[in-house]
Amino acid sequence: MTTRDRIRDAGAQMFRRNGYTGTGVKQVAAAAGAQLGSLYHFFPGGKEQLVEDVIRTFGPLYGDLTYAILDPYENLEAAITDAFALAAQDLATSDYADACPIATIALEVASTNDHLRQATADVFTDWISRGAVLFVRHGLGEPDARRLTIAMIAALEGAFVLARALRDPEPLHAAGASVATAVRQALDQAADTH
Amino acid sequence: MTTRDRIRDAGAQMFRRNGYTGTGVKQVAAAAGAQLGSLYHFFPGGKEQLVEDVIRTFGPLYGDLTYAILDPYENLEAAITDAFALAAQDLATSDYADACPIATIALEVASTNDHLRQATADVFTDWISRGAVLFVRHGLGEPDARRLTIAMIAALEGAFVLARALRDPEPLHAAGASVATAVRQALDQAADTH
Repeated sequence: MTTRDRIRDAGAQMFRRNGYTGTGVKQVAAAAGAQLGSLYHFFPGGKEQLVEDVIRTFGPLYGDLTYAILDPYENLEAAITDAFALAAQDLATSDYADACPIATIALEVASTNDHLRQATADVFTDWISRGAVLFVRHGLGEPDARRLTIAMIAALEGAFVLARALRDPEPLHAAGASVATAVRQALDQAADTH
Repeated sequence: MTTRDRIRDAGAQMFRRNGYTGTGVKQVAAAAGAQLGSLYHFFPGGKEQLVEDVIRTFGPLYGDLTYAILDPYENLEAAITDAFALAAQDLATSDYADACPIATIALEVASTNDHLRQATADVFTDWISRGAVLFVRHGLGEPDARRLTIAMIAALEGAFVLARALRDPEPLHAAGASVATAVRQALDQAADTH
């Protein structure tokens, strides 16, 4: 792994767990086993450039991982239930630390840094587009596919907030079941009208 | 309003918009029109004591506001749809700044400050208990009532993340519709078995 990648990965881990404001570039360099000068060599814009790189790298990657889980299923309802159960398991395994890589940052910058807010918005927009394509493939019309993809992403993000605070996987199972039910209902309606 | 309340309210506003780590006690005192010494007089534990007071005051208050909207409805599905629409309207009116008063703090402290994490957990636990009572009153069994309340709170929290990042109310409408559908489905099933 290059020094640049080590710095970026250490930053991603710290931003995810401690937030953007709660993470210092010195800590990131130390965690990456790099000199502070090296961090500024690769990220001349310092922490803001580093976090934007993290958002634009790990945001799409998290989308890749999630859609890689959902993609192979023939039954979308089962796909969603299983994906939320897997997220619950991963979260508990990381002692309730590793959830969405960009959610904490997104809330911190939403009203304070429009450039970084836009980076988080680009990631969410990408996730929504990709989910809508998947949901259409399962037989939903485009408006329903978009609406339910957004509901699924919102449910996942919100369940992470509750599950991390409560140190309990229950919110992920509850949120997944609710979205799966709404998707089942929409698929049944779509089938009835065809 | 007492000086203590002015300090607490200014802190609440700044934590909600800028996060816990991103807010300094000097800024809070200045925003409240108070001396820094006055802030430490009322909150000898400094920022940590202030944020815990904010979590334990504004968290339950936000629950009061939300359940005051949901309570009067005879139709729970309509209640949820309207509550999410109202949250969308309020968020847009505040230029996408004022969403849940404790979510940003909850994510920031989840893995970094167990005392404050517990304060956020207590708020979420209270919201869940109150919602479950409401949902049971509408005819759901206790397990469904609890599960769907958690799904509703998760949907709201996650939709706030997306709506603030995208500067768009759509996620609140999409998340509300999905939860309303899941609630309708559970109510229909409960009615069928009685």
